[in-house]
Amino acid sequence: MQSVHLVLLMAMAMATATMATTTTLTSLTSLTSCSYYVLFLLCAPCTLVHANTVWPMPAMLDLSLTPIQPLSHQLANTLLSSTVSVSPSFQFYTEGPTNEYVQAAARRALKIITHTQSSRHTHVLKRASEGELASCSVRIQDASTELTQQTSEQYTLDVDAQTLSCSIVGETYVGAVHALESFVQLVDTYTMTISATSIKDKPRYAFRALLVDTSRHFYPVETLLTNLDAMAMTKMNIMHWHIVDSNSFPYVSSTFPEMSKQGAWAPHHVYSHEDVATVIEYAKARGIRVMVEFDTPGHVDAGYAAIPGILTQCYDKTTGQPDGTTGPLDPTNESTYDFLEKLYTEIKAVFPDKYVHVGGDEVPFGCWESNPSIAKWMAAHPNVTDAAKLEQYYELRLLDILKRLGFSYMCWQEIFDNGVQILPDTIVNVWKGGSDDTALKKELQAVTGAGYRAVLSAPWYLDYISYGEDWKKYYLVEPDNLCDNCELFGVEACMWSEYVDATNFISRSWPRTGTLAERAWSPKNVKDVDAASPRLNELRCKMILRGIRAEPIHPSFCLTEWPGDAEAETVRASIRRAGLDMRAESYR
Amino acid sequence: MQSVHLVLLMAMAMATATMATTTTLTSLTSLTSCSYYVLFLLCAPCTLVHANTVWPMPAMLDLSLTPIQPLSHQLANTLLSSTVSVSPSFQFYTEGPTNEYVQAAARRALKIITHTQSSRHTHVLKRASEGELASCSVRIQDASTELTQQTSEQYTLDVDAQTLSCSIVGETYVGAVHALESFVQLVDTYTMTISATSIKDKPRYAFRALLVDTSRHFYPVETLLTNLDAMAMTKMNIMHWHIVDSNSFPYVSSTFPEMSKQGAWAPHHVYSHEDVATVIEYAKARGIRVMVEFDTPGHVDAGYAAIPGILTQCYDKTTGQPDGTTGPLDPTNESTYDFLEKLYTEIKAVFPDKYVHVGGDEVPFGCWESNPSIAKWMAAHPNVTDAAKLEQYYELRLLDILKRLGFSYMCWQEIFDNGVQILPDTIVNVWKGGSDDTALKKELQAVTGAGYRAVLSAPWYLDYISYGEDWKKYYLVEPDNLCDNCELFGVEACMWSEYVDATNFISRSWPRTGTLAERAWSPKNVKDVDAASPRLNELRCKMILRGIRAEPIHPSFCLTEWPGDAEAETVRASIRRAGLDMRAESYR
Repeated sequence: MQSVHLVLLMAMAMATATMATTTTLTSLTSLTSCSYYVLFLLCAPCTLVHANTVWPMPAMLDLSLTPIQPLSHQLANTLLSSTVSVSPSFQFYTEGPTNEYVQAAARRALKIITHTQSSRHTHVLKRASEGELASCSVRIQDASTELTQQTSEQYTLDVDAQTLSCSIVGETYVGAVHALESFVQLVDTYTMTISATSIKDKPRYAFRALLVDTSRHFYPVETLLTNLDAMAMTKMNIMHWHIVDSNSFPYVSSTFPEMSKQGAWAPHHVYSHEDVATVIEYAKARGIRVMVEFDTPGHVDAGYAAIPGILTQCYDKTTGQPDGTTGPLDPTNESTYDFLEKLYTEIKAVFPDKYVHVGGDEVPFGCWESNPSIAKWMAAHPNVTDAAKLEQYYELRLLDILKRLGFSYMCWQEIFDNGVQILPDTIVNVWKGGSDDTALKKELQAVTGAGYRAVLSAPWYLDYISYGEDWKKYYLVEPDNLCDNCELFGVEACMWSEYVDATNFISRSWPRTGTLAERAWSPKNVKDVDAASPRLNELRCKMILRGIRAEPIHPSFCLTEWPGDAEAETVRASIRRAGLDMRAESYR
Repeated sequence: MQSVHLVLLMAMAMATATMATTTTLTSLTSLTSCSYYVLFLLCAPCTLVHANTVWPMPAMLDLSLTPIQPLSHQLANTLLSSTVSVSPSFQFYTEGPTNEYVQAAARRALKIITHTQSSRHTHVLKRASEGELASCSVRIQDASTELTQQTSEQYTLDVDAQTLSCSIVGETYVGAVHALESFVQLVDTYTMTISATSIKDKPRYAFRALLVDTSRHFYPVETLLTNLDAMAMTKMNIMHWHIVDSNSFPYVSSTFPEMSKQGAWAPHHVYSHEDVATVIEYAKARGIRVMVEFDTPGHVDAGYAAIPGILTQCYDKTTGQPDGTTGPLDPTNESTYDFLEKLYTEIKAVFPDKYVHVGGDEVPFGCWESNPSIAKWMAAHPNVTDAAKLEQYYELRLLDILKRLGFSYMCWQEIFDNGVQILPDTIVNVWKGGSDDTALKKELQAVTGAGYRAVLSAPWYLDYISYGEDWKKYYLVEPDNLCDNCELFGVEACMWSEYVDATNFISRSWPRTGTLAERAWSPKNVKDVDAASPRLNELRCKMILRGIRAEPIHPSFCLTEWPGDAEAETVRASIRRAGLDMRAESYR
């Protein structure tokens, strides 16, 4: 085995960042006087990881004297071939308005470069060429730290090989965060070079989500943060947090503490308000919104059972007696709505996003239909003629509460299908019909035809694993082909957790979720699965360099393989610490 | 969240063990004067993990006044219900002959108990009942440290609730290692009690293997050791190390160093002789033999390409010119056999096991058939009429070398199918025909009918993942139903690594491989999948307590969930260190 030469031990000067114009954010400071840093690899059969690609593929390449044109990957491979050496004292600096998230992101970006660079195992040194990139300016047009559905994610990134200059411009901090991620991905940390490039980038869809289910299994906060790292790498912008379900209720409600006490898998497998705040702030610093889901009136059991009277008692039809089980929330009980108002008032305070996901899927009608007091109530309400109408009644009451509380909402498609009157800015989550294109087309046309925004989940149920390179299947779904004469608002991958917990959530989700991320971000013409294959492999190797346990997509290797659990955790912690704002307690 | 009470901080007295009779191996020493140690759990909806079961289910329960009878799990659940408190100063001690492996295993066993006990999160204390188990004697009948196919694995384990006594008797050190594992699994470390029991145990099959493929992806040694921990927990006894293949050649040969230099994925992704010795010794200490496979004449490319002349040049049939690719080893070139003799001479020195796996599967005949010099050679050898006969010729030459070197061997079924004359003690690895019971029956009958030992792999290709509780499928395969009027020698699970590396190897393999482990060890009547389900879940929770990243099998929880990567690594290291012999450098 080759001995390990770690010649370029770099330390990061954690410059105390201020908000002033032209602030040095971070710098690569060589601890040695070594000026040799172009590195060769003694690698025999290796297909080397090439860094001159970004996942997801950027939208546009702005060539100086030609019009802006869509970037295809073939073009990218040609145009990005000119490389610039990155100086050992490379630094990011801000120009104009800035904010704490931009500064934290720049510190993390530099940390990633220094870390991954020093984690090389095998190399020899050559003298660097003359020209070096000494710095990159980071400018944002709007220094607001607000993050909403409307926040612009556009950015430009220019690395000029002739002038040895680099500039990043984001409309908002989120654009700058994305640009810094692209910058880091463009750096080949084995040779410490960056591809000369000119990127003008923005997402194809404004809504690019991953559903995370913490009810079927409990995930520690650490696991959620690592997943956010991977989402940020792939420019996804929504963590759809399916926080509770029938199986367990890990959310600690201050209003109804009995819900998690009785409904969590175990007393210590819960999310406190502080845990939730950590996740939200960590996500926000990376341009990711956390949209929480409290799924009702079905998918309730654990937790809700602690609140007297709100669950429907199911009856045995033969004996006419309670069968000992409970079903959905009881929509005929006024205390149900008192409960919901209090719960959502708390949710509004704990989860700052404008949007909440109200669930509404798979309501089992049988239990409602079996219950004599519900039958009696329905007899007194002649408009409520069947269970579907009863569900409609429930949703109307719930959505009225949400409207009063100032929420916008997302819902599973059943609420729309069932004809409930929903707010105009509602997002309808189309999840049924997996590979049934006809059904999907019909649903999407109906949803968008009625003026609502549609988010498509059905093709990306990533928990349905299968043998082989199943990522190709997910990559090849073209949303436009499922939306005739209609426009999708976004796409969402789902990692339901029946068979997933902290042991396998990250490896099973990544890099597979990257397929959806590129479909959601990149232009429609970025769809060549053969071209995507080495790029996706490279993405997963970059994830490993950052301590994210992404699994292989085919027989291959990463020059730096999974480094062992403890080392990976150290790497992640080190990158996170780099992003910590000196004035803030929480992760950035 | 409940605050964490870690009241019983236990330290392990790492008594310097000697080989004398009645040696105190290890003891649980309380650091406090606390005598409260029966623990309650403040766990609301929890289905608690019950420790009074062992996976795989032991063979026999010896009831004092009744004849020995097969143990069904229903019976076990009844009979094992009487529990005994384990003293805080509990210790193992040897009686009669002993050896370093027994002592190391006892130290590890105690370490596991102390670790898992102190990793509880939530409990209150109650005064202990009067009777406590203070110690357990460990006796072996044969103190040899040899490990072969013939080594007895039998043991007895008696925990008597009346006399508060415990004794372990193994015929060999391996029996004692297995008994200590059963003991540890019987301890409920949340209440520090052990089920009173009387076990007389031995395996159903003498050969219980897991194939580990380090060619499609490279695994660090650490990953191999963790996998051995899991194999030892489930009493598996063969690591079939598919160390090289077409994709990469990570074995560093001292005779042919160019093979890994040119054939490894990367220069640092290799196994040195020292690495191999570490794996073998770690396995041996746990009763596991390492059987290495160098698959020829097919499945060669990486590595073998470094040896001039031994790979067949493939020809384009149309042009009659070399097509630039290579195929199997060239059986008509005498230098091939010179090479094989040298390589296997080295293998004999590096891999001490009597058995080597020679591969022999999936030889692509087309390349041989295309090569004009092979055609010429065949014309000069009238007995070699076709490619199948050529393969036969190759295998005869190879097996002759192995015979002279003193190897016994295992081979993929093709060598037998092809009518090669193999040694009487050959083990034939039946892998073809997955779910085709008719084909499997025919093959197994042919192999055993010809007097060879058959090991069945076909139903347990665990790399073929699918959604849901696929473990049931693997658990339900009954080998006897595939072997009409014949007797299997063993069973083997395969985790081919096309889509597996250090990121997901452990989670994808465990607890799923446990299904094969129980099928291989336990009596045929232990087959109730519903009864197995909570036991398998318990096994995976016990794995997590030991730092082994076993994935969930259904929506559920472990009271101690995956603790985070770094902590898990610390736990594993701590258990391993406990097993280190003071006089030895290597892991035990």
